[in-house]
Amino acid sequence: MKEVMCIIRLNKVSKTKEALAEAGFPSITCRKVLGRGQKSIDKALLEAYMEAGNLPPTSFGENLSERGRLIPKRLITLVVKDEAVKAVVDAVLEVNSTGTPGDGKIFVLPVEEVYRVRDGQAGETAI
Amino acid sequence: MKEVMCIIRLNKVSKTKEALAEAGFPSITCRKVLGRGQKSIDKALLEAYMEAGNLPPTSFGENLSERGRLIPKRLITLVVKDEAVKAVVDAVLEVNSTGTPGDGKIFVLPVEEVYRVRDGQAGETAI
Amino acid sequence: MKEVMCIIRLNKVSKTKEALAEAGFPSITCRKVLGRGQKSIDKALLEAYMEAGNLPPTSFGENLSERGRLIPKRLITLVVKDEAVKAVVDAVLEVNSTGTPGDGKIFVLPVEEVYRVRDGQAGETAI
Repeated sequence: MKEVMCIIRLNKVSKTKEALAEAGFPSITCRKVLGRGQKSIDKALLEAYMEAGNLPPTSFGENLSERGRLIPKRLITLVVKDEAVKAVVDAVLEVNSTGTPGDGKIFVLPVEEVYRVRDGQAGETAI
Repeated sequence: MKEVMCIIRLNKVSKTKEALAEAGFPSITCRKVLGRGQKSIDKALLEAYMEAGNLPPTSFGENLSERGRLIPKRLITLVVKDEAVKAVVDAVLEVNSTGTPGDGKIFVLPVEEVYRVRDGQAGETAI
Repeated sequence: MKEVMCIIRLNKVSKTKEALAEAGFPSITCRKVLGRGQKSIDKALLEAYMEAGNLPPTSFGENLSERGRLIPKRLITLVVKDEAVKAVVDAVLEVNSTGTPGDGKIFVLPVEEVYRVRDGQAGETAI
């Protein structure tokens, strides 16, 4: 079994929920997170530079104070059978890819065991 | 070492905390999450159907707007030695199983390394 | 690839963000969590003891009601290549170790796949 962790934009939660349910994966968990991507490296370094008390380089724009900050995102997590990972990833990509930075990331992690709390049932049938 | 992730009902946090402490596992992390289980699949599909602009089928009840929604849950996470997983799972099941849908899930994931930030100590003794 | 999960003090988020960006790891996710460490075991047991309706042992102090409670922490998560784990751990330890209990923990978990949502790119280059 695998845990599929999807970091997505706030305004994509509803569509992602629908897409996953339609693909047969209604069982999800959603959390509020703050995130920052790889593309922010220059902004992040600049922020650190300025937080250290330096003045901003004059080549940077007015909204400088917002650069490199962590941005509100949503983390949708679900645990599925190995053979379902591709369908989950495809469903998430389908509704979340806008082609612009900030679309998010999907991570796939191994899960060794699952238990359904209701009856203690273990294994894939408990997902 | 393993990470044990327990998705439980809001009103079970205190009892779960106690049960884990009594079983020798006080070191936990708790987060707010929203969740939905496998049993919600029909409701989830219905919700998608209605969000697409369709009228509800007449066979569904008055509280239709609440169907398939994500429900507030708590996620209690702890990292333990391999041989302690069973005791943790048993302690969580003991106080969380009500026998009804919505009791939650427990996921067990592999953890490769642990560091105690205080002194940089690595390994099982750092848990 | 590995997921590095760092549970740290609230007042260390900004410095940790900076340290990770300077070390070349700006891509992070941050969440609010509540946590309790191993050192809390006696306090946790005491809390359970008192929540069961017992009076506090007279040897305990005035702020007893706060003992064993879950404390607000921050969880900073990042996914990196295997060979980068040490640099990440070192950067986090460097700015977070105060030598006192409550500094937090770092967990390293295996990650099997990563996808960049923007373009569906998979693998290490998508991190």
